[in-house]
Amino acid sequence: MTATRDGNQGGEKRTRLSPQARRAQLIDLGVHMLATRTLDELSVEDIAVEAGISRGLLFHYFGSKQEFYVEVARAAAADLIARTQADTDLEPADALRHSLDAFIAYVEEKPDAYKSLVRGAGGGDAELRALFTETRAALAERVVRVASALGFTLDEAAVLAVHGWVAMVEECTIGWLDNRTISRGQLQEMLARALPALVLAATDTDLDNLVALLT
Amino acid sequence: MTATRDGNQGGEKRTRLSPQARRAQLIDLGVHMLATRTLDELSVEDIAVEAGISRGLLFHYFGSKQEFYVEVARAAAADLIARTQADTDLEPADALRHSLDAFIAYVEEKPDAYKSLVRGAGGGDAELRALFTETRAALAERVVRVASALGFTLDEAAVLAVHGWVAMVEECTIGWLDNRTISRGQLQEMLARALPALVLAATDTDLDNLVALLT
Repeated sequence: MTATRDGNQGGEKRTRLSPQARRAQLIDLGVHMLATRTLDELSVEDIAVEAGISRGLLFHYFGSKQEFYVEVARAAAADLIARTQADTDLEPADALRHSLDAFIAYVEEKPDAYKSLVRGAGGGDAELRALFTETRAALAERVVRVASALGFTLDEAAVLAVHGWVAMVEECTIGWLDNRTISRGQLQEMLARALPALVLAATDTDLDNLVALLT
Repeated sequence: MTATRDGNQGGEKRTRLSPQARRAQLIDLGVHMLATRTLDELSVEDIAVEAGISRGLLFHYFGSKQEFYVEVARAAAADLIARTQADTDLEPADALRHSLDAFIAYVEEKPDAYKSLVRGAGGGDAELRALFTETRAALAERVVRVASALGFTLDEAAVLAVHGWVAMVEECTIGWLDNRTISRGQLQEMLARALPALVLAATDTDLDNLVALLT
């Protein structure tokens, strides 16, 4: 690490980052490293080396390893939410398939990180568990908002079913990664059809609508 | 603890348990304590006091606190699987509602323990995470077996959807516990209707069957 800093000596003053930019850089490095390891396996040392700073300076920006992990997980969750946003220019059914495609791509890209977050909530840390619960809720609430903007008013049972659908999407995608019994397209199609099926099953009326939506 | 053992001195020889019976007794005490606390909050000291043995003796039966926790979690999971078994004397739709009733009752009985298992997989322990994954898989595979015995052959997409349905049942039941936006009966009904809806949405055929099953 000292070597890296010494090597940079000449130009370091010019490229020194503001505290905010440095924090963002370190979080970003952490998120990228999640592609090949779980949150538990993230090494603060590796991050510091990659950023060309000392381990001590990293702890100047983040009080503890745990605080750094939580910030990395928060950034990863925000990235997932942003990337799976529904494209409102598309027809509802296409927008849903588009979002699911982005979700599956995200999980394919960072399978270890995603599995460790969903299945272990990152080592039992209360803050990470809360973050995971909030992320799942944010995804579900967005579906409810989009549906409502499209004129589908969901009652409380259907809202709960949408939360269940998000849990189902996570479980099916992770299960599928480990053991690809169907094609990626079949997975996407099954999950896309599951949403209206669940909403309709929850609302207890108008089964003809379900048929129309699913065909 | 010494007091308890001394107090029992007179009759202890007669009631001394075999190693196997003692292990079972300690696990059983642990499972019962889960009604009022999470797995993380289980106190090995409290268990020992309750059983009238020393903390040291408990560690004679279980190598470590973690090993004891895993055994308690395993027993709790086996209990959940046993209690939610489908009653094959009932019609399929009734058997499903009956199993869901037992599942909701179980979660209502041990909400903290169940939430900590599902949302945190018990503190990030790899063995507990594996146990949770196996329990979820066992519940899903049982649904697939029952459906198959009833003549509904599920293709791979539908099998994956059933796994997703189990995740949905967990998520909806926990979400409902925290925030009872619908009645218990509505929850049960919504989850019961969700299963055939998902299977049919997954199989991509025969939408009339769905209508028949849901009405």
